[in-house]
Amino acid sequence: MTYEYKRVVKYYETDRMGIVHHSNYIRWFEEARVEFMREADLSYKTMEDEGIMIPVVSVDCRYKNPASFDDEITVYTKVRKYNGIVIELEYEVRRDSDAVVIVTGSSSHCFVDAKSFKPINLKRTRPDMHGKFAAITEDDR
Amino acid sequence: MTYEYKRVVKYYETDRMGIVHHSNYIRWFEEARVEFMREADLSYKTMEDEGIMIPVVSVDCRYKNPASFDDEITVYTKVRKYNGIVIELEYEVRRDSDAVVIVTGSSSHCFVDAKSFKPINLKRTRPDMHGKFAAITEDDR
Amino acid sequence: MTYEYKRVVKYYETDRMGIVHHSNYIRWFEEARVEFMREADLSYKTMEDEGIMIPVVSVDCRYKNPASFDDEITVYTKVRKYNGIVIELEYEVRRDSDAVVIVTGSSSHCFVDAKSFKPINLKRTRPDMHGKFAAITEDDR
Amino acid sequence: MTYEYKRVVKYYETDRMGIVHHSNYIRWFEEARVEFMREADLSYKTMEDEGIMIPVVSVDCRYKNPASFDDEITVYTKVRKYNGIVIELEYEVRRDSDAVVIVTGSSSHCFVDAKSFKPINLKRTRPDMHGKFAAITEDDR
Repeated sequence: MTYEYKRVVKYYETDRMGIVHHSNYIRWFEEARVEFMREADLSYKTMEDEGIMIPVVSVDCRYKNPASFDDEITVYTKVRKYNGIVIELEYEVRRDSDAVVIVTGSSSHCFVDAKSFKPINLKRTRPDMHGKFAAITEDDR
Repeated sequence: MTYEYKRVVKYYETDRMGIVHHSNYIRWFEEARVEFMREADLSYKTMEDEGIMIPVVSVDCRYKNPASFDDEITVYTKVRKYNGIVIELEYEVRRDSDAVVIVTGSSSHCFVDAKSFKPINLKRTRPDMHGKFAAITEDDR
Repeated sequence: MTYEYKRVVKYYETDRMGIVHHSNYIRWFEEARVEFMREADLSYKTMEDEGIMIPVVSVDCRYKNPASFDDEITVYTKVRKYNGIVIELEYEVRRDSDAVVIVTGSSSHCFVDAKSFKPINLKRTRPDMHGKFAAITEDDR
Repeated sequence: MTYEYKRVVKYYETDRMGIVHHSNYIRWFEEARVEFMREADLSYKTMEDEGIMIPVVSVDCRYKNPASFDDEITVYTKVRKYNGIVIELEYEVRRDSDAVVIVTGSSSHCFVDAKSFKPINLKRTRPDMHGKFAAITEDDR
């Protein structure tokens, strides 16, 4: 399942090179992730309200082509791994007008207790959420 | 008393116009304010740890000349009003190389309890801090 | 004419106070302005491509109530003054769920030649654009 | 040669988790890179003025421990590869007070002509700059 998050490039996201500053794609990945999870009835906000945080363990991004102010783009997002302890997502950003790939990237996350910051295994502690995450995970077999 | 906060313009603070994006000056004001208060033994961090937050009530900025990547600038900061309940600061940003004024601005803040978000009068609740704030306030009489 | 720009609060826009960092509202004003102008067939991108930039001359913001992660908000935007040389806009940000006012603010801009950065009078140089700006300006008489 | 870039965590760099938002480390890497190059007489600004841009080809970051508002940190930066066409840097961010590793990461860049955006081989086109880059590159043999 690939989630499509649509967006327009903001003026304040550009830099003096005239293109989107490379740090902003990491923020777009987050935006896409948040909306993907909302779609899967796994709202970030609700999870945090229920005491579960999802910190980033690692992130990477490869820059293929520049995006510019006002470009309409789509972040194509997939869950490539999920096991109750760790979740990994993949992202591909394309410009809508010409389908050119702007960046590709991935992020890895764990689940922690909002108070203790200790890792949580959703499979055991929140089987309801676990089922929903499993349902949106790519099956590569 | 005017506090001088020095800084270099970062690449990611520029926009496609080739100059500093106007929203960033609001962040520089905050940086200058934090360092000014640290200098006056009124560390933001310590105040928050002791349960006092200093939210922004209003802010304004007038843009005189553009600043560019790598410019060395100074934020000249003054407390123009303080009465235990409200604090108002004034800022002037100048480029070091030619003393050109980049922006001028001001911000107004109150003091609130970190838990209840209710206003606090520092004069009554924290006379120690009150004295330090009073000491750095401009006396225009 | 009031333009309504809808938006969700992003995670990266919050700060350690748990609310939207005050500098971000200045960016939302810009987003709303860009979309308002697009609606009026005055696309920022097109204007810049045709050699006209619209730098910010001043901005101010008054913070009424905090907004939080995932809040759905609307930026209500009006042109309160326009004369070919200067444009002034007013903004009011409200939370959709309870109509609470989050911030109010305004921004003032001029029009400049993208190469020389010299001021332009749209009324004389670009009567086509002038007419469109005049059409969206509030008539307070 | 390891370059040490010192910095304090800004308020606006924190998020509602109470820690530095993960996207900001990518910006710190840039800051460290810019200062490292300045130290090596390879000022970004000067290079851009002379028509050479250094876009990011890829970036990655692994998050080890959270940093908080007001933490004093150091970005330890090394050039791990350079051949005239590509440059790769490694970063390690540590908190000064306890030497705890906050994040590690790397970035890869190429050199392009500022007008055509076409790749440049510095070894051939700018032997003066090439020598300086070679001088700060780690020799792992």
